[in-house]
Amino acid sequence: MSIERDSSTMKLFTLNSNVPLAEEIAEHIGIKLGKSSIKRFSDGEVQMNIEETVRGFDTYLIQSTGEPGNEYLMELLIMIDALKRASAKTINVVMPYYGYSRQDRKARSREPITAKLIANLLESAGASRVISVDLHAPQVQGFFNIPVDQLKANSLIANYFLEKKLQDIVVVAPENAGTARARGLANKLDAPIAFLDKQRNEDPNSVHGVNVIGDIEGKTAIILDDMIDTARTVTSGSMALLQNGAKEVYACCTHGVLSEPAVSRIRESQLKEVIITNSIYQADNKKDDRITSLSIGPLLAEGIMRVQSNESVSTLFE
Amino acid sequence: MSIERDSSTMKLFTLNSNVPLAEEIAEHIGIKLGKSSIKRFSDGEVQMNIEETVRGFDTYLIQSTGEPGNEYLMELLIMIDALKRASAKTINVVMPYYGYSRQDRKARSREPITAKLIANLLESAGASRVISVDLHAPQVQGFFNIPVDQLKANSLIANYFLEKKLQDIVVVAPENAGTARARGLANKLDAPIAFLDKQRNEDPNSVHGVNVIGDIEGKTAIILDDMIDTARTVTSGSMALLQNGAKEVYACCTHGVLSEPAVSRIRESQLKEVIITNSIYQADNKKDDRITSLSIGPLLAEGIMRVQSNESVSTLFE
Amino acid sequence: MSIERDSSTMKLFTLNSNVPLAEEIAEHIGIKLGKSSIKRFSDGEVQMNIEETVRGFDTYLIQSTGEPGNEYLMELLIMIDALKRASAKTINVVMPYYGYSRQDRKARSREPITAKLIANLLESAGASRVISVDLHAPQVQGFFNIPVDQLKANSLIANYFLEKKLQDIVVVAPENAGTARARGLANKLDAPIAFLDKQRNEDPNSVHGVNVIGDIEGKTAIILDDMIDTARTVTSGSMALLQNGAKEVYACCTHGVLSEPAVSRIRESQLKEVIITNSIYQADNKKDDRITSLSIGPLLAEGIMRVQSNESVSTLFE
Amino acid sequence: MSIERDSSTMKLFTLNSNVPLAEEIAEHIGIKLGKSSIKRFSDGEVQMNIEETVRGFDTYLIQSTGEPGNEYLMELLIMIDALKRASAKTINVVMPYYGYSRQDRKARSREPITAKLIANLLESAGASRVISVDLHAPQVQGFFNIPVDQLKANSLIANYFLEKKLQDIVVVAPENAGTARARGLANKLDAPIAFLDKQRNEDPNSVHGVNVIGDIEGKTAIILDDMIDTARTVTSGSMALLQNGAKEVYACCTHGVLSEPAVSRIRESQLKEVIITNSIYQADNKKDDRITSLSIGPLLAEGIMRVQSNESVSTLFE
Amino acid sequence: MSIERDSSTMKLFTLNSNVPLAEEIAEHIGIKLGKSSIKRFSDGEVQMNIEETVRGFDTYLIQSTGEPGNEYLMELLIMIDALKRASAKTINVVMPYYGYSRQDRKARSREPITAKLIANLLESAGASRVISVDLHAPQVQGFFNIPVDQLKANSLIANYFLEKKLQDIVVVAPENAGTARARGLANKLDAPIAFLDKQRNEDPNSVHGVNVIGDIEGKTAIILDDMIDTARTVTSGSMALLQNGAKEVYACCTHGVLSEPAVSRIRESQLKEVIITNSIYQADNKKDDRITSLSIGPLLAEGIMRVQSNESVSTLFE
Amino acid sequence: MSIERDSSTMKLFTLNSNVPLAEEIAEHIGIKLGKSSIKRFSDGEVQMNIEETVRGFDTYLIQSTGEPGNEYLMELLIMIDALKRASAKTINVVMPYYGYSRQDRKARSREPITAKLIANLLESAGASRVISVDLHAPQVQGFFNIPVDQLKANSLIANYFLEKKLQDIVVVAPENAGTARARGLANKLDAPIAFLDKQRNEDPNSVHGVNVIGDIEGKTAIILDDMIDTARTVTSGSMALLQNGAKEVYACCTHGVLSEPAVSRIRESQLKEVIITNSIYQADNKKDDRITSLSIGPLLAEGIMRVQSNESVSTLFE
Repeated sequence: MSIERDSSTMKLFTLNSNVPLAEEIAEHIGIKLGKSSIKRFSDGEVQMNIEETVRGFDTYLIQSTGEPGNEYLMELLIMIDALKRASAKTINVVMPYYGYSRQDRKARSREPITAKLIANLLESAGASRVISVDLHAPQVQGFFNIPVDQLKANSLIANYFLEKKLQDIVVVAPENAGTARARGLANKLDAPIAFLDKQRNEDPNSVHGVNVIGDIEGKTAIILDDMIDTARTVTSGSMALLQNGAKEVYACCTHGVLSEPAVSRIRESQLKEVIITNSIYQADNKKDDRITSLSIGPLLAEGIMRVQSNESVSTLFE
Repeated sequence: MSIERDSSTMKLFTLNSNVPLAEEIAEHIGIKLGKSSIKRFSDGEVQMNIEETVRGFDTYLIQSTGEPGNEYLMELLIMIDALKRASAKTINVVMPYYGYSRQDRKARSREPITAKLIANLLESAGASRVISVDLHAPQVQGFFNIPVDQLKANSLIANYFLEKKLQDIVVVAPENAGTARARGLANKLDAPIAFLDKQRNEDPNSVHGVNVIGDIEGKTAIILDDMIDTARTVTSGSMALLQNGAKEVYACCTHGVLSEPAVSRIRESQLKEVIITNSIYQADNKKDDRITSLSIGPLLAEGIMRVQSNESVSTLFE
Repeated sequence: MSIERDSSTMKLFTLNSNVPLAEEIAEHIGIKLGKSSIKRFSDGEVQMNIEETVRGFDTYLIQSTGEPGNEYLMELLIMIDALKRASAKTINVVMPYYGYSRQDRKARSREPITAKLIANLLESAGASRVISVDLHAPQVQGFFNIPVDQLKANSLIANYFLEKKLQDIVVVAPENAGTARARGLANKLDAPIAFLDKQRNEDPNSVHGVNVIGDIEGKTAIILDDMIDTARTVTSGSMALLQNGAKEVYACCTHGVLSEPAVSRIRESQLKEVIITNSIYQADNKKDDRITSLSIGPLLAEGIMRVQSNESVSTLFE
Repeated sequence: MSIERDSSTMKLFTLNSNVPLAEEIAEHIGIKLGKSSIKRFSDGEVQMNIEETVRGFDTYLIQSTGEPGNEYLMELLIMIDALKRASAKTINVVMPYYGYSRQDRKARSREPITAKLIANLLESAGASRVISVDLHAPQVQGFFNIPVDQLKANSLIANYFLEKKLQDIVVVAPENAGTARARGLANKLDAPIAFLDKQRNEDPNSVHGVNVIGDIEGKTAIILDDMIDTARTVTSGSMALLQNGAKEVYACCTHGVLSEPAVSRIRESQLKEVIITNSIYQADNKKDDRITSLSIGPLLAEGIMRVQSNESVSTLFE
Repeated sequence: MSIERDSSTMKLFTLNSNVPLAEEIAEHIGIKLGKSSIKRFSDGEVQMNIEETVRGFDTYLIQSTGEPGNEYLMELLIMIDALKRASAKTINVVMPYYGYSRQDRKARSREPITAKLIANLLESAGASRVISVDLHAPQVQGFFNIPVDQLKANSLIANYFLEKKLQDIVVVAPENAGTARARGLANKLDAPIAFLDKQRNEDPNSVHGVNVIGDIEGKTAIILDDMIDTARTVTSGSMALLQNGAKEVYACCTHGVLSEPAVSRIRESQLKEVIITNSIYQADNKKDDRITSLSIGPLLAEGIMRVQSNESVSTLFE
Repeated sequence: MSIERDSSTMKLFTLNSNVPLAEEIAEHIGIKLGKSSIKRFSDGEVQMNIEETVRGFDTYLIQSTGEPGNEYLMELLIMIDALKRASAKTINVVMPYYGYSRQDRKARSREPITAKLIANLLESAGASRVISVDLHAPQVQGFFNIPVDQLKANSLIANYFLEKKLQDIVVVAPENAGTARARGLANKLDAPIAFLDKQRNEDPNSVHGVNVIGDIEGKTAIILDDMIDTARTVTSGSMALLQNGAKEVYACCTHGVLSEPAVSRIRESQLKEVIITNSIYQADNKKDDRITSLSIGPLLAEGIMRVQSNESVSTLFE
């Protein structure tokens, strides 16, 4: 089923990071992906080839900047430059996953704020708008002077759990952060929350330095984070939760970064299931029976078409 | 005692928001405040009068943008314009309290990101650098393209409590946020943490919809927030903590916004003591025996002189 | 009667400075004001609430930045930021009165040029265009890089006097300025001009240091200024004119700033009538039988619709 | 006599518009003009040759943009680009006469604001500061975001008249403008003012449509303008003044634009003397016994050295 | 024959440099040139008069910046400013000849890069796009951040020669540059190439320091350059070619700069014919029987209409 | 031997692309490289660690953006951001090899101009200056608004050949480009030039479509290019040259990109020797007996110190 709106003045392009998601979005919208190829010269420099006119069109560029993030980001910047010089009317950057988003402040002296640098680079190259999903910190919207539409995978994840009809749930926020996010999911699941506290001086009750704060005894714990990278937090968290009396532990997130050794950690863990979305493309070697991937394609397609049709995106913000 | 460094190429000016703090800083540095007067025309427009040359000087402008924030912000922007046109070498904005910092993201559709707007206005007017204390979110640094030096009142507050030699402390994060900040103070006090959870559907154990998560039984609870505005959070939090078994409750923060009816709420509460700093000037009617104000003057003076002397500010980041 | 043009792609919003004028403009155009509320948080910070979509619309924001000018200006800047981030197509700022417009040059060393600062702030926030009425100096248009449409209340005022069928008029320019403006009105009234000269070393014929230059003997004098602030100029001017033989004295202006003690000065003066427009909202305590307010609502409505319909605004420049 | 300050980190360059003035300024400062040649290629394009290093130096570029203004302006912009790319530390543009300054507002629809355009071009090319003399409108300072130091020839002109020991002077403002400027000179000469009123419907007393307003009977009239271009205003003004009873008429200005047929008009007029400055270079055919040129070289040299030495320039603003 | 596309939302204006070409373009498109007059004030400053509304229109400005380049460039910048302030929707600058394009790099220390400066000035004034023909270096496109559409006169020139049905052609690149351009024309004419080598230490075979490299014996040589300025290169080149055995020599280029003494050199030379285009207007005294001018009017008209109709311009790039 | 100038206010940092060259430069200057580490997080994102203060220092960052260019470029941009936020006084980017420099124009429709994009990104991140060696096109300097100092390896290469005392040399420009560069080296070697012409329709004398133009019979040919990438041009060129009678063939360039299969092509070729510089780091598997690498370390060290000491760099431009 494709959404019924006017798509005659728009063109949708994908770069290399997540072609299946781009195709899914295109199918939902009911258009074909624009013809282009992004290859490499023999020395690795990006070679761009846009094979149809974009003059006067609203263009949408789909690219997550997950690993290898620098490569995918440069592809994106170069494509923006090409579209700008080819007289595209608007250049809408669709970044389901915004790489470097954890570098959003100076945690120590002389650190860069790379998430802000990326924002500056995108604007400098010529982006007109950014559409993203579950930014690591919502303040990243404020790194931009162009409009940023942030969609949320919250309902998608909540619905997945609601269909499971689990009893006696507790939503668990990870190490000293994310309590607001956890409260949001807990509201949808009508559940209490707890959190994991990482301490310098370990508590005798803590497991590998992780202490559980809140009542989880006999409950089904769902650890929620915006992303799962090396899976250390969720696997050590699940150990702490189980040892402190949780019945079973799920982990879920929007962005499955899953860098080494995430998948083997998950395989070796006692996690019942790990739920991610397809904001980042997963190669086959990162797939596992216990890892479930939900598709954000319909959400992004709907978001893009609302932008294109000048409809309110606000109901997708929830 | 004044700090011994070269202050011959700098000038320190204050605007109207917090003259006593500016004077304290000047005294610590060992220089006089620059001569200027910021008055109003009969229709309320700001009338600026810089009464000594600033040509070629590194200038430092001290202004917190607390209530009335719009007035103080406009004073600041106009002064920056005057300094720029008077050929100041650099214009360093010292904002102990950064107003509008809670508006740092779009929480709902069609909201402004006012904290980012302020950053743009300061840069557009001509600011060279910002020095601030405990920004509401550290990501606000990333709203700027100029350097931002963020100082922290954490040690000041920790030392105050350490001198009290309290036993069996728990540091409490406020409603679904600030767990990382609480963990930071807890580390300095060698204490565990807990947090307050605000729920939609109230738990039978909750007080006014606030549930306590974590072990606080018989302990001295210290609620830590970056600012106390109407004091609703800390007063209802203290009620929930006491009812759930806490021995006594302190509240502390960097920025004492204390807008109506904060002071009367504090007076009527069971809070043992509320600790703030002088980042915002408090009129006499906002003073109370149970409100203790710590001075950040020495911290700011040291920060300014390190900037002026090109010394590392990093140790003041802790 | 509403103007018959297409208003389907535009939205008109008002902020707090002059709601009645905004409503009058909306009625002339034949549309409803956009739903929004601009409230304050407990600490006085502006709380913005745009309650309908603006995505893709040409938006017009009506706000005069009269007293309290800093508050109204910040409301305006924050609303521009909100509209920009909500993807408005264009943001047209309608400032019937442009506050701080007298600060348009460095009269002395180390003064700001606040009127230019305001221009920079508006552009930095995201304004696409400014529509204003009778700028204090026409050069303020040049402070902007975006288009500025300046409308003029000259014909409105001239027609008011023409209907009075006064005989033997002289138009008087105020203290050492505004002779070109006076010549413009005099042309419409077919009258000669004179002017008021403010001297350091008083002439024996001067009244309170104001000397009348030109022939006013037995004539009906009309003092014309762009704004009347404290009314000192027009009341001392009227005294000088009457003492030098004028038959009667009117004062008129576009912008009735009327800050303290303007109204009492006018009440105590021998001015026959003071004509202003509603570019600035007048509270009831600023109303007086001798003060007549002409409405610029129709002029602004016509200007806005010509901008929206891409018609020439030039005939409204006269 | 040269001014005694440190000039070791500065370099002074002249372009082609007014080499004698540049040499006079250099002599006053006590340095040599930087070696450069600005020639033309065979097709008229500017060929720049800076023949000594400017890396790290504060550079001052002397160029009035009088006739041919476009040529001199392009020379200036190209030299700024060359200095920027050659790593000059600062680029201070000294424009004794700021061409196009009369195009400072939209007098009619679809007019450019060329004086603002020039400001943008200078900033875009890389200018750090502008030093000018008697801008046509002081608001031109506000067209810039970089510091503008405006010097005034007022004292120079006043002193010239004071030395003449003329009796019974009246300072006359030209056609419907410049009354504030006239009041300034009148204060220095302790004289009253009058003005010339240009009317559409001629008054029987007017001469060529110019009416004299104010008391000039038997007096020595000094018409003051910022510039004399075709000399129509001052010659027709002098006729009107003499016919209305003035004893004799002087004309004075800062900028002797003197475009055709100014000199012949002056020669044929009854003007006693015309006083200008050397802000614009006068070719021999523009010289005349009745035209006196005062040098602003010392004023500019002093202004430049105060800027270079970070001294206050404010006393030169008078 | 006019091109059949929608021209109702566009306006085409010409400035003074090449009115006949502008008229030819307008005729091809099938619209009238917009009413405007670009005159001069008595002191030579540009006086702009746009006599019809441009509000909301896509505007195209035709101006080559050949001799006098500074005058024509300033006309162009001022017109852009006027269009911007008159609310034109887009401002498309059509520069058939881009003056100063040879100053596109620092050949020596402390040289300006004037071609880049021009790009900055055009963008700073408000240009939306540039359309040009055969830029001296294609890298000049990269001096802009706005789209640049570069058309090429290559096919026009090739067709002219193909119609001549010349035998045994060799295309000759001028002094140590332009071999790629020569290869392009040679491909269209199915010919080999050779080149002229300018040496410091002259070869005994060289003529006036110009050596011929490649086989030209008995061939018809066509020297190709992007522009012919003083004609020294092509006339001395033709001498060297003939002396080394060429049968006859043609010279061709896109831009006939023809500054003194180009025409007399051509008249005195043995060149059989010189082919230029009308990108630059040629006064009658620059016309000669041996100089043939091809019209680029149809090419530019087609390019403009494709831009306006959002059609691909790529096939015109060849 | 280290250069004797003041290096107390500068800090030199290296990133990962060419540490040996950075160390060589540091040794020549006589300072230590600044302490920093550039590592990767588990997902490949760049982790920056500057381990000493840079506040107020002139910093120099050495990074060539050869393969993997996107990675090295992102390292560079992130480091610039970190230095800017850490209050470095100036950030001087030393890019011995400027990656993507061949993408300096739109060769076809809808191509990016990546070399310009890189320039914009560097400026947007905060670079103050760029120092590079032998840019692919000198026009790349004009892509920047900040100063660019381009050094040249020409003398280094010429001296290497002069020491060989080769007889009867001809310098050969590669395929339809680089004749000016070849003429430059030929002047230093007092030699004639020739060039390689790549044809569509092959000449019977051509080898693999490469035709030799000019006299090379019995000569020692030196093919000169700015970079050698896959070595196709120089190896097929050498075949054509030898087959057309050259005695022996050398190839030389500044930048040894040497991407696959360059080294094996060189090994299998009849090239006598290939001369490159160390502007790009060569892993051991790219080394070969027939490839000679000259060091540009002394040249860069001298260039950096002249910039730091405000000395003229012009003599290094040759």
